[in-house]
Amino acid sequence: MSLLVVGSVAFDAVETPHGKVDRMLGGAATYFSVAASFFTHVNLVGIVGNDFTEKDASIFKGRKVDTLGLERADGKTFFWAGKYSENMNERTTLATELNVFAEFKPRLPGPYQSSEHVFLANIDPTLQRSVLRQVKKRPKVVALDTMNYWIERTPKELRETLLHTDILMINDSETRQLSNEHNLLRAARHIFTLGPKALVIKRGEYGAMLVYKNRTFQVPAFPLEQVHDPTGAGDTFAGGFMGYLSSVPRVGDAELRRAMIYGSVMGSFAVEKFGLERLRTLKRPEIKARAKHFHKMTRFEL
Amino acid sequence: MSLLVVGSVAFDAVETPHGKVDRMLGGAATYFSVAASFFTHVNLVGIVGNDFTEKDASIFKGRKVDTLGLERADGKTFFWAGKYSENMNERTTLATELNVFAEFKPRLPGPYQSSEHVFLANIDPTLQRSVLRQVKKRPKVVALDTMNYWIERTPKELRETLLHTDILMINDSETRQLSNEHNLLRAARHIFTLGPKALVIKRGEYGAMLVYKNRTFQVPAFPLEQVHDPTGAGDTFAGGFMGYLSSVPRVGDAELRRAMIYGSVMGSFAVEKFGLERLRTLKRPEIKARAKHFHKMTRFEL
Repeated sequence: MSLLVVGSVAFDAVETPHGKVDRMLGGAATYFSVAASFFTHVNLVGIVGNDFTEKDASIFKGRKVDTLGLERADGKTFFWAGKYSENMNERTTLATELNVFAEFKPRLPGPYQSSEHVFLANIDPTLQRSVLRQVKKRPKVVALDTMNYWIERTPKELRETLLHTDILMINDSETRQLSNEHNLLRAARHIFTLGPKALVIKRGEYGAMLVYKNRTFQVPAFPLEQVHDPTGAGDTFAGGFMGYLSSVPRVGDAELRRAMIYGSVMGSFAVEKFGLERLRTLKRPEIKARAKHFHKMTRFEL
Repeated sequence: MSLLVVGSVAFDAVETPHGKVDRMLGGAATYFSVAASFFTHVNLVGIVGNDFTEKDASIFKGRKVDTLGLERADGKTFFWAGKYSENMNERTTLATELNVFAEFKPRLPGPYQSSEHVFLANIDPTLQRSVLRQVKKRPKVVALDTMNYWIERTPKELRETLLHTDILMINDSETRQLSNEHNLLRAARHIFTLGPKALVIKRGEYGAMLVYKNRTFQVPAFPLEQVHDPTGAGDTFAGGFMGYLSSVPRVGDAELRRAMIYGSVMGSFAVEKFGLERLRTLKRPEIKARAKHFHKMTRFEL
């Protein structure tokens, strides 16, 4: 049970109706690793610049996150700046500075090469594929995230990588764009012809939907009185989802459902404060309590 | 156990990406009555013109719908025409001809005046209030639907009627408009100060949410490969919801949850075909089977 993640480690500047932070630790692989480490051992592959300090790295200390694969390069760390709309349903990217990420060539340290679970966060599909090639034995579960940028610009490379993917985790609009189908069930059927056996559709304030075989499982979002910062919610969801799956001996129907719940639980915590602030102080009993709350919020008897 | 509904009986012209119908039976009270009649006895209050034929009325025949309160007036029946966008998330009203509805003064026949459950469909809040005044004993449950038009133009009258309402059933944007709050939990808390003890938020393709006391219950929409016509889905939901509540001796937590499921089940059938076409041929065992499907689609064990 070890979970490999490759993706961005970054500094973010974020503005939401609840505040503004000029520089805080972020990046898909960061959110994912921290969330997943509540469930399993995580092997992190990414790249940072020499502005990434020991203090920044301390987010991984005392957690089950191995940072042997976090390369340090000369230059600045990936930087992203964004601003959310009043209702936080839309966001505008104000700046994307790739910096050291521009030359990123993921290299897996020896022990990482036998990871049984792999999450390919949203990066160039060619890099995602190169990571998979370095894993010696076919992993039990390969999950992948992507975005409109890669769907539009590198469709061929994305298709090649999807052939080796078990679970695709994207949002509604990416699902529709990738499949050229508005209806989500038909979109899922199309996506299954591309390789993935399961599709997890992240729907923000509306929750998430899992489609696999001829089944669907839906989980609502946890209703919160205050959402402070949606940044990283999707990656935190993925961390809870894959972290849980990596912690169980076999992946069946019950486990996939539970993974959806733990993904939703982790995502719901992430948005309560800015950046990684809430995850930083999160405790296992809180995760357990919120999972029970999801159960209460959805259960019914006929 | 008898359920009173007051609302529109209409002819609709509808265009969706799946087709176009120039004139078909519609109206909130029609959808509501047909849906509710699968669960309980319905007392219908509404008005039609002399273009409303025996053939039109046949939708209520052989069902537990009492049409003694369906007034016939000189003139034409209420007519609505609308067109849905490509993804059916938006609709444009092309025509609204009130006709006989313009002079509608709801009058409850004697037997209706002891109805224990009341649904006030989306009409002028002053008319909704006048119906409540004609019910002799305080009903067990009064539910109400309304829309932006009344929220904006008759806020005072709406507030007066809300004082006598137990369950408010509206969509997300109406919830936000009425409460002047974007966050749905805070919106619900505000609405509870206006009278209702429970709020049912209808969210279309994203399902529905019930808020009451300090609890929430959420149900996803049933995933369908084809949605032909969303017209009447909300009223059909309300019919399943109130029809079920009216069929049980007491309304507690378990019953409210089940009502949400039956509302969702009925709404999911309504959109499968144009107008009332699908509800017309619907059978009890299909309702039961789909309710079970909702259970499968949402259940999980921790």
